[in-house]
Amino acid sequence: MKKIILILFIGIFHQNFFSQENLEKKYNLMPWPQEIVENNSSFKIDEKLTISISGDDLKKRATNASIKFLRRLANRTGVFIDVGFPIKDKKTSIVISFDTVSNLSTESDETYSLDINASNVLIKATTDVGALRGLETLLQLVNFNNSGYYFEGVSIKDSPRFVWRGLMIDVARHFQPIEVLKRNLDAMASVKLNVFHWHLTDDQGFRVESKVYPKLQKIAADGLYYTQNQIKDVVKYASNLGIRVIPEFDVPGHASAILSAYPQLGSKDDYSYKVERFSGVFDPTLNPSKEVTYLFLETLFNEIAPLFPDEYFHIGGDENEGKHWDSNTEIQKFKKKHNLKNNHELQTYFNIRLEKILKKLGKKLMGWDEILTPSTPTTAVIHSWRGKHEGLKQSTLIEAAKKGYQTVLSAGYYIDRMLSVEHHYLVDPIGNAILTKDERKRILGAEATMWSELVTPLTIDSRIWPRTAAIAERFWSAKEVNDLKNMQKRLKVINFQLEELGITHIRNKDVILRNISNHQNIEALKTLSKICEPIKIYSRNKGGTEYKTFSPFTLFADACSADAEDAVNFNNQIDLFLKNRDRNSLSKITNYLKNWSTNYSDLQKINQNPITKSLEPLSKNVSQISNLIQTTLQNQRISKVNLKKADNLLKELKEPCQDVELAILGSLNKLINFCKSKYLIN
Amino acid sequence: MKKIILILFIGIFHQNFFSQENLEKKYNLMPWPQEIVENNSSFKIDEKLTISISGDDLKKRATNASIKFLRRLANRTGVFIDVGFPIKDKKTSIVISFDTVSNLSTESDETYSLDINASNVLIKATTDVGALRGLETLLQLVNFNNSGYYFEGVSIKDSPRFVWRGLMIDVARHFQPIEVLKRNLDAMASVKLNVFHWHLTDDQGFRVESKVYPKLQKIAADGLYYTQNQIKDVVKYASNLGIRVIPEFDVPGHASAILSAYPQLGSKDDYSYKVERFSGVFDPTLNPSKEVTYLFLETLFNEIAPLFPDEYFHIGGDENEGKHWDSNTEIQKFKKKHNLKNNHELQTYFNIRLEKILKKLGKKLMGWDEILTPSTPTTAVIHSWRGKHEGLKQSTLIEAAKKGYQTVLSAGYYIDRMLSVEHHYLVDPIGNAILTKDERKRILGAEATMWSELVTPLTIDSRIWPRTAAIAERFWSAKEVNDLKNMQKRLKVINFQLEELGITHIRNKDVILRNISNHQNIEALKTLSKICEPIKIYSRNKGGTEYKTFSPFTLFADACSADAEDAVNFNNQIDLFLKNRDRNSLSKITNYLKNWSTNYSDLQKINQNPITKSLEPLSKNVSQISNLIQTTLQNQRISKVNLKKADNLLKELKEPCQDVELAILGSLNKLINFCKSKYLIN
Repeated sequence: MKKIILILFIGIFHQNFFSQENLEKKYNLMPWPQEIVENNSSFKIDEKLTISISGDDLKKRATNASIKFLRRLANRTGVFIDVGFPIKDKKTSIVISFDTVSNLSTESDETYSLDINASNVLIKATTDVGALRGLETLLQLVNFNNSGYYFEGVSIKDSPRFVWRGLMIDVARHFQPIEVLKRNLDAMASVKLNVFHWHLTDDQGFRVESKVYPKLQKIAADGLYYTQNQIKDVVKYASNLGIRVIPEFDVPGHASAILSAYPQLGSKDDYSYKVERFSGVFDPTLNPSKEVTYLFLETLFNEIAPLFPDEYFHIGGDENEGKHWDSNTEIQKFKKKHNLKNNHELQTYFNIRLEKILKKLGKKLMGWDEILTPSTPTTAVIHSWRGKHEGLKQSTLIEAAKKGYQTVLSAGYYIDRMLSVEHHYLVDPIGNAILTKDERKRILGAEATMWSELVTPLTIDSRIWPRTAAIAERFWSAKEVNDLKNMQKRLKVINFQLEELGITHIRNKDVILRNISNHQNIEALKTLSKICEPIKIYSRNKGGTEYKTFSPFTLFADACSADAEDAVNFNNQIDLFLKNRDRNSLSKITNYLKNWSTNYSDLQKINQNPITKSLEPLSKNVSQISNLIQTTLQNQRISKVNLKKADNLLKELKEPCQDVELAILGSLNKLINFCKSKYLIN
Repeated sequence: MKKIILILFIGIFHQNFFSQENLEKKYNLMPWPQEIVENNSSFKIDEKLTISISGDDLKKRATNASIKFLRRLANRTGVFIDVGFPIKDKKTSIVISFDTVSNLSTESDETYSLDINASNVLIKATTDVGALRGLETLLQLVNFNNSGYYFEGVSIKDSPRFVWRGLMIDVARHFQPIEVLKRNLDAMASVKLNVFHWHLTDDQGFRVESKVYPKLQKIAADGLYYTQNQIKDVVKYASNLGIRVIPEFDVPGHASAILSAYPQLGSKDDYSYKVERFSGVFDPTLNPSKEVTYLFLETLFNEIAPLFPDEYFHIGGDENEGKHWDSNTEIQKFKKKHNLKNNHELQTYFNIRLEKILKKLGKKLMGWDEILTPSTPTTAVIHSWRGKHEGLKQSTLIEAAKKGYQTVLSAGYYIDRMLSVEHHYLVDPIGNAILTKDERKRILGAEATMWSELVTPLTIDSRIWPRTAAIAERFWSAKEVNDLKNMQKRLKVINFQLEELGITHIRNKDVILRNISNHQNIEALKTLSKICEPIKIYSRNKGGTEYKTFSPFTLFADACSADAEDAVNFNNQIDLFLKNRDRNSLSKITNYLKNWSTNYSDLQKINQNPITKSLEPLSKNVSQISNLIQTTLQNQRISKVNLKKADNLLKELKEPCQDVELAILGSLNKLINFCKSKYLIN
């Protein structure tokens, strides 16, 4: 059996390798399809373009998607398409056909084929959702020349590597209004993600209207929650895009908000439960020894679960340190009585109770990997969030799959850690693990996680995108599609197309900089922001007590993002230059350095308020080191005094300033070392 | 009686004149308050800032507004305010007090006083809504120096000139999602507008869910409508901001959408009623001779009216040309039977029937000024939309008030005509009309109207703002606050602050230009867009048939707006220069001309697709004329050949290109005339 898989594997590898070599440079598809062949034709896009759908579009997904497709195509190209809706006639420019309507489950088919030639465009799929995937691919094949816009002539056969390709959004730490979710659902669909994991509750808020327990929204939400109608609306919106919605109600830990409304469910008597304003891991925990806790959850889930048609239901279960359990004598007695040796076993007891409640509701219990204990039934689904960065040798994904659990990976895809797109892109969910067919099948897929301690509706898009587009490729495309430079090239185009869907990652940078500068010329700030990145891996909000949920997130760090634009380009040029003394690279490097040299004096012109003043040391040091290096490169000589000065500047620049780090620091160090070895004079 | 008014008038005038002279230059308040005195103190804004509310905040308006105030203040200043919610303690930095909760009617009080000194900030008002107005004024008094942010020390007593200060948004021609409405409601509140007129139905769509007549949303809305829950949510959101919501259901004309769902209510048999895709005035009209029409409307209004707590209910009534009535013999018979001499009388019959239906629902009928006929009862409210631009000597407002009707003005405030802010700002609702006290009282106020034939969610904010902020001042402030230069100065700051509320008027310009340029460097396009304005007074969509509702509105004209930024500045400098040969102005003019001279070659670099190509003639001509004038000014000589060339260029530039007009054309003409008279050589 293994041999057959291996042969298939080599086959796929060979084909993809071939495609990549020839076509990845040409087309800006993301995720990259499984098979693509070009046919040297093209289909002209003009006002006569029409779409028809054959197949019973019972859920109207294809109709909705076709209408959206027509709007996006018109808006991108400026073509006044005459017929704004799909029509019945089968002689249309674009013909969409599919066999059945998808029931949106882990078994659903998303394969499609797309054939573009000079006379028409055919999208064929097993399900309506497959057809949607094809329409998105088609939109990525729009190109233009002097005579107008056209679709590139190609034939594509495509299907996903993983059935579960998700994005989690935490709406508890910072509430995210419906329109934030909808535009991100649109963006998800555009890169073929198919699971929206909705982290709805946490210490900082309970975000769902409950009619049975109205205190949850009255006390535990600061007025920021979704009504049940709004939830139905989001679920329907997602379904129209072929996206499943998995709700998460995080218990028994992360329960400050729930307990602020219903303290009688808590594990510690006389504790003053309050909606949490800081970030971190907190003690408030539901009491697993009280029957009322289960009654409460059963009643709540009975009310809430029907809002979410999906079979999977996430109960969190993470980061319960058990302090309040340890301090409660009733709970200790309960453990003894039920022969539960430690808090892990107690939590497993709790989970098993929940699993039964959910089963009655037709739901599968899913939880973060803390729920993986010896007595957890294999009907539970393990969401692996811990891996190397938590000190483990590998993610708990493989362990769970081998133990018989269905499992989904998020370790490696924590986009709130503000790491580079390359970092996440290179994390393969399975890696080199050797798995049986059944084990492999239990690995459903993976999810990027957007925890929201430090993001607001103004900034969340710039934290999710464009990195998540590359992650989506990791979840959809073959493992062998992993060329970083080519990914970067394609991502540049996809990044821009995300704007069409209302994603604000580009536009809101300027908004923040205008605010910081009191609406003066923002060019100096913009230049600086393009080489700065927010400090990484949770160093921005140390201990979770620097920012409260209502602190300002309109600061310089919020205008910066991972993969700072100019830094990425500059660092590439440095590598090219140091590798082979490329003169073209040197010229680009010099231009950057010259530009940064004058940035401090430019910033001074608008440097009038406390926020811009706080950036002064950073800007000054950047200008000085840039000037010093640029002069050195030009004169091909550096004195010991200046070398010392450079070392000091680099040392100072190593320290974060205003929650950002200088993303060109490594390159500057390399350059100084180069100068030292080549141009040092006595 | 009149004398007393005159004395009061002079008193107010004097005071305001004094205030304007001294303080309008210093503070960027908009609308300008009725009384303001400075006290040379200031209140420091730091993390210890707190707010308390005294007065029974039964509707939670003050609490909500205080929380929003704290968030906006933190976001604007970057100050980490420690306490994120209003507290009980009365020794807070900001103390808000009011006597009663406003019932949000035309009788509601909005007066407030605001006292800022070094030790605290006091806002006193009769109603909670008055307190909200004071909080907005306070946010406009934030300033900073080297040591931090502070509120300016002033004492203000303020109240509105008109009780009805509205903005109408047409969501029928282009549907506007909830978030568009909410951010615009926030912006309205920030400039003290208090009426949101919601134009919910028209030929192009019926935007309200009806459970009684579900075909209205199924057939007449293309899926784009508000659920009843969403409507309640918007009404509540507006109420929290002290904004009344007036719904408009436009009948008997503008009825294509309604009739597409229920053709049996139409005036013409066998007519194929369809949701209209074009703009203009169309024939489909409800049949006023059938009882079923009234039954339908009564049932519909019974269902819909309770969603809107306000007493006023707008039934449109405009632009019914009666063609379908004329062609229907039953209707002709009906007219004879009821002794109705013409279609006006027939429509009045219809309106009187509606008025009775609405009266039973506790509603006052309001309609556009076509409903003003001799037999219309004075209980109806006249919304005056026609004035000079429709060939009338003055607006129908004064006529209606004199005839005993309550009335509201929109003539002069049609912001979709794309005229300058100055144009609208100088329209005084009453002007020099001489009115009795009762007549004056019947003039409730005025509304800006945002018709949406040519605006989408992407562009609507840039059509409403910032011009509507200046219009809001016209509706709130004393008549004598009318200095254009000072208004421009203050508007520049307010314009920026609107961004805080999510208004996208600034950010979305770049989004459109990035789309047009395929995400290349947009500077050349931006430079061009800053001197171009969308063509005005409905010339963009001649006859309503150039654009359909689903045509692209992501074109160059959509990136441009009224009051093109550089054009306004340039035109000011030209006037200064020509008036007194100001050298400083000449230098600025020269810089602009130099910049525009090179713009064509800059544009060429990204000039690759059909959209940018279409801008080539415009850009080329602008560069050539700029270069020619700049050279002339520099050399102080122009040949006859070059003068002829300039004339030709100016002639070509007079023609709109891609739906924009060159907003510096008048100034260029003036400059050429200047050159001709001064520098012409033989």
